[in-house]
Amino acid sequence: MAGNTFGELFQITTFGESHGEAVGVIVDGVTPGVDLCEADVQVQMDRRKPGQSSVTSPRKEYDRVHILSGVFEGKTTGTPLMVMLYNQDMRPEAYSEIQHAFRPGHADYTYLQKYGIRDHRGSGRASGRETAGRVAGGAIARKLLARRGVHVLAYTQELGGIACQSFDEQAIERNAVRACDPEAAVRMIEKVEQLAEAGDSCGGIVECRIRGVAPGLGEPVFDKLDAELAKAMLSIGAVKGIEFGAGFSAAGMLGSEHNDGMCAEGFMTNHAGGILGGISTGQDIVFRIAVKPTSSISVPQRTVNVQGDEQEIRTIGRHDPCICPRIVPVVEAMACLVLEDQYKRQAAMLG
Amino acid sequence: MAGNTFGELFQITTFGESHGEAVGVIVDGVTPGVDLCEADVQVQMDRRKPGQSSVTSPRKEYDRVHILSGVFEGKTTGTPLMVMLYNQDMRPEAYSEIQHAFRPGHADYTYLQKYGIRDHRGSGRASGRETAGRVAGGAIARKLLARRGVHVLAYTQELGGIACQSFDEQAIERNAVRACDPEAAVRMIEKVEQLAEAGDSCGGIVECRIRGVAPGLGEPVFDKLDAELAKAMLSIGAVKGIEFGAGFSAAGMLGSEHNDGMCAEGFMTNHAGGILGGISTGQDIVFRIAVKPTSSISVPQRTVNVQGDEQEIRTIGRHDPCICPRIVPVVEAMACLVLEDQYKRQAAMLG
Amino acid sequence: MAGNTFGELFQITTFGESHGEAVGVIVDGVTPGVDLCEADVQVQMDRRKPGQSSVTSPRKEYDRVHILSGVFEGKTTGTPLMVMLYNQDMRPEAYSEIQHAFRPGHADYTYLQKYGIRDHRGSGRASGRETAGRVAGGAIARKLLARRGVHVLAYTQELGGIACQSFDEQAIERNAVRACDPEAAVRMIEKVEQLAEAGDSCGGIVECRIRGVAPGLGEPVFDKLDAELAKAMLSIGAVKGIEFGAGFSAAGMLGSEHNDGMCAEGFMTNHAGGILGGISTGQDIVFRIAVKPTSSISVPQRTVNVQGDEQEIRTIGRHDPCICPRIVPVVEAMACLVLEDQYKRQAAMLG
Amino acid sequence: MAGNTFGELFQITTFGESHGEAVGVIVDGVTPGVDLCEADVQVQMDRRKPGQSSVTSPRKEYDRVHILSGVFEGKTTGTPLMVMLYNQDMRPEAYSEIQHAFRPGHADYTYLQKYGIRDHRGSGRASGRETAGRVAGGAIARKLLARRGVHVLAYTQELGGIACQSFDEQAIERNAVRACDPEAAVRMIEKVEQLAEAGDSCGGIVECRIRGVAPGLGEPVFDKLDAELAKAMLSIGAVKGIEFGAGFSAAGMLGSEHNDGMCAEGFMTNHAGGILGGISTGQDIVFRIAVKPTSSISVPQRTVNVQGDEQEIRTIGRHDPCICPRIVPVVEAMACLVLEDQYKRQAAMLG
Repeated sequence: MAGNTFGELFQITTFGESHGEAVGVIVDGVTPGVDLCEADVQVQMDRRKPGQSSVTSPRKEYDRVHILSGVFEGKTTGTPLMVMLYNQDMRPEAYSEIQHAFRPGHADYTYLQKYGIRDHRGSGRASGRETAGRVAGGAIARKLLARRGVHVLAYTQELGGIACQSFDEQAIERNAVRACDPEAAVRMIEKVEQLAEAGDSCGGIVECRIRGVAPGLGEPVFDKLDAELAKAMLSIGAVKGIEFGAGFSAAGMLGSEHNDGMCAEGFMTNHAGGILGGISTGQDIVFRIAVKPTSSISVPQRTVNVQGDEQEIRTIGRHDPCICPRIVPVVEAMACLVLEDQYKRQAAMLG
Repeated sequence: MAGNTFGELFQITTFGESHGEAVGVIVDGVTPGVDLCEADVQVQMDRRKPGQSSVTSPRKEYDRVHILSGVFEGKTTGTPLMVMLYNQDMRPEAYSEIQHAFRPGHADYTYLQKYGIRDHRGSGRASGRETAGRVAGGAIARKLLARRGVHVLAYTQELGGIACQSFDEQAIERNAVRACDPEAAVRMIEKVEQLAEAGDSCGGIVECRIRGVAPGLGEPVFDKLDAELAKAMLSIGAVKGIEFGAGFSAAGMLGSEHNDGMCAEGFMTNHAGGILGGISTGQDIVFRIAVKPTSSISVPQRTVNVQGDEQEIRTIGRHDPCICPRIVPVVEAMACLVLEDQYKRQAAMLG
Repeated sequence: MAGNTFGELFQITTFGESHGEAVGVIVDGVTPGVDLCEADVQVQMDRRKPGQSSVTSPRKEYDRVHILSGVFEGKTTGTPLMVMLYNQDMRPEAYSEIQHAFRPGHADYTYLQKYGIRDHRGSGRASGRETAGRVAGGAIARKLLARRGVHVLAYTQELGGIACQSFDEQAIERNAVRACDPEAAVRMIEKVEQLAEAGDSCGGIVECRIRGVAPGLGEPVFDKLDAELAKAMLSIGAVKGIEFGAGFSAAGMLGSEHNDGMCAEGFMTNHAGGILGGISTGQDIVFRIAVKPTSSISVPQRTVNVQGDEQEIRTIGRHDPCICPRIVPVVEAMACLVLEDQYKRQAAMLG
Repeated sequence: MAGNTFGELFQITTFGESHGEAVGVIVDGVTPGVDLCEADVQVQMDRRKPGQSSVTSPRKEYDRVHILSGVFEGKTTGTPLMVMLYNQDMRPEAYSEIQHAFRPGHADYTYLQKYGIRDHRGSGRASGRETAGRVAGGAIARKLLARRGVHVLAYTQELGGIACQSFDEQAIERNAVRACDPEAAVRMIEKVEQLAEAGDSCGGIVECRIRGVAPGLGEPVFDKLDAELAKAMLSIGAVKGIEFGAGFSAAGMLGSEHNDGMCAEGFMTNHAGGILGGISTGQDIVFRIAVKPTSSISVPQRTVNVQGDEQEIRTIGRHDPCICPRIVPVVEAMACLVLEDQYKRQAAMLG
């Protein structure tokens, strides 16, 4: 398969550049007969959009959802579901200055190396704008998963070196950084505002917790559930790592500490993060991803232009000083896509 | 695709259970006309086999390589290459005690949940034995990559809480734990021997460094090079996390620190780990994986049997107290498979 | 993969229902740096549209091509190319009479059986309208193939029992039935007009001839060039058979007659249709497809409704009495898609 | 996917050359918990083997089935099932004469063009020997389909210009040409014996009839049931065409003749061959394939050698004058593979 399709049986194909006319997604393999309306998708698009607070980009990217096929009289038909999102507030001219220079941390250099041509307008296909199609597709997967009792939740766990110390699920959508600890959130927001002032950015850690997954999902030996989730998450720009359950700290544990014992009530601990041998155990699936600092900063940096001449560059524009809050719905979307696909693969295996 | 095939264009399909008659692999998409003999594969199988030292399982798993197709007069023909590895030293009876109980940390419970049936002999398909086919396939990819000037190297970076402090490439294959620091290696080996004595196990971190990769590999937006490598690594049993370049430490960095500037000679740093926007930059590709402690320990653990009754269990058998040294050639194999596949995908994209 | 994506490396994903808001296609795997504009696609869409003559449906289906992504400053960028075609002249109310009855020869019954739900408006996804996305995708493949010197040509070879007796390439696009024999075309048109009068329809045979294909295309043993072309053609509604070269007449030939001998100038005959062992020989690729009579006829037919009650039905609407002339550009489009994909697969095999 | 894997969810990957050490298949996606033994596969291998009568090649190709994985205590486990078939009676030296010349009708020329290298021993991978792995995989699909009440039957319908006039299912396996008309079979056998005497060969038509298929199978718009069957059949060497139901004769029919009306008892005719809109209707699925005359004949033919010099060639060896009888189990196997895969795809769609 070419690189813009994700999933085997529940499958999305996305298109669109940051400053082109539109972005969008075709969702194929949707179970027929399920209630679905544009509002089901809109609610997730609204969580992703910028300009929601002082900590996110002021760019207006209002994504009005248009479902152009695959739904008939309020129900899915089993045919491909097309979600269209027209771009607004495009300012391609704002990017003319970066036309000839490679922005550090961006994909400018690698796109040119790969394709020999580059749409420089706001990163083109490499823009975070591309994730709009993922979120739309994920919203549909989320609707299907709800029927199965599956609930996917992501949140900022650490930002700019400030870690959450408590877990308050209700707090997450109530603070601008989507942190699970409202007190840490206050300090995180301060941090982001300082960085915005300084023209710099910071990274963070986003955690995802998935509840209600049946045991038995995942297709060994290569399409294990954790392998598919890892691919899904690393396919998101700015994600530089993933760990499940105890993750990297497992490297320092003994087997007698790390192994999750069982009793009559089930597993006694969850160091494995809900996955054993690549198959869900029925416990919560828990993973964390490392998010790098936003590449676009106005602090001057050294770079070269396409001729190889050295120059200084500042990335002017409307950018988030930390991408964590906006990556949260993208992480959830990708997790939903993987899970719905795996449910269908398990149905096929037993079918 | 079903779950036992990996890769799009350079593709392996593996089969075999730990205590069945054989394991093996069909490698498809092999470039025709390349010199290849069984010794090219044997050398990698020998690096993977147990019983090489005091720190690895004494099980005799001598894997004599048989190439049954796809090579004619010493050259690949472009047709599927089948590598057969007959199992030896099988002792299925040794596993009868675990027939009815779920070993903590193992996939016993999840395989039964998924398939409704379980080959309990030495973990069956969920055994590390399964990786033999991967290493055979990876050896062929490695041969093809050598023609491209690509060199893949993995090594133990941390084991049982002991981290390498130096990097000595020559030392790696000369110490039993495949550590890159020969002094740390001495302490790691002591640690493993103590754990073996105590019937316990430990985890570690394996690092992989890939040199000579051309810029331009990786297929955005979903089949990014890091996404494919992440899937490949997480598909290996015992791997619980992966990070590229600065990885999780990027979460605590500023954009002005993390961004890799460029000068006339190229990139000035490599926090990105050789991948930007999912595409190789031409720098070394660097990633680390978290390896959990070996699940099989003889320390008594709490578990339940298939009826749900609680019981104590000790996993008797021939097991490695730490899997890091033996996972090193598997990590290299999977990295080779991903890279050869991506080279072919790039040829197709431009073709 | 779900069923609305075609191709491995040059890949299209289509969406849209006959009387929904739009149909369209995402084309992925497009070689970057190739000149492409909307007119390149429009010219093929115009060949496919109805209402071109007395022998095609008067429905106005004017397909104005919108390329929404994947092209920058007149060149392809290697990112997904989205072609949008808004539906016009929709008359969903015209189909209310067929809401509850199964039209003979149509997919009404099978869609309901498969999905448990059916968009009855003008056949929904099962409409010939769906092929608009294929023709758009095929137009892009055609542009890429032109660079390779490949030329794909299809034409009506037989219609309503009237067979072409001569081959005049220039005549094809000049007659309303796209026949290769202008004299036969006159009688075919008379036939179609008579059938339109009578409310009946007829079938025919479309031949496709592909010139300039390099030897070596096709991926044995399953993805042979003829196997992929067969799948592509049978995926078009109304196609009931395909034959290559001598085809079904080979069943009555001797080996000494059928085998294509070779001399210093190359092959002496082309009974094989340009493919041996599933791989192109470098000769013209020649195949024919059987096209069934248009299912929509106003002659009364026996059928049942969704409750199973027997009833009589006449399909009123704007329909082509013979689909051959309009299937010609669809056959060409699918052939182009297969060939461009196979060129990329061969590049990968040797890459 | 590379070209030696077939199917999406029920998937086979085959390997092996005619005169290599072995041929075989890995079957993945097998439903777990199903009774399976080597005899289930052996019975189909025995139907395929040569030397069964005066009309088939005297080559001894006794295929003793070895299942090396995926079955535990007589039941499938859901893990890959490997079937190994060691080659016997190999005579590579018998083919030294064709090492440098291209046999008319064979893939000698195209394999060399594609891969730049050619295993000339008995056609290598392009040999009919390759179908052994398909028949083994098909036998497993057949076992799974039996649980669903599906029965696949193929037979010779025409051979050397002699067509069957009656249908006697019991007669098929009792005559050496597997014809459905025992009287025609007598004349067909005479014909084949005459051709063997003359060193020539002939073609024929094989029909396949599939009973008990549920309505609803097939994945529009590209992976329609007839499209998948067409690909499967055209992937068999020597097959030059396929038609469903009325097939090519539909080209001469009126819509009012061809459309299958419905009454309370169901469809009144089956011109469609059991498939409408690419989805099974629940009627018998009926298709026919055109089989070309065996390419290997001892009648002298004109050809060239690898240097392009003209020469005469006779293909000496042990060959079937008509491949129809031996292609029958291969056709059944491929049909079984497609159907089992489609059942799993339908389970996923609704799952």
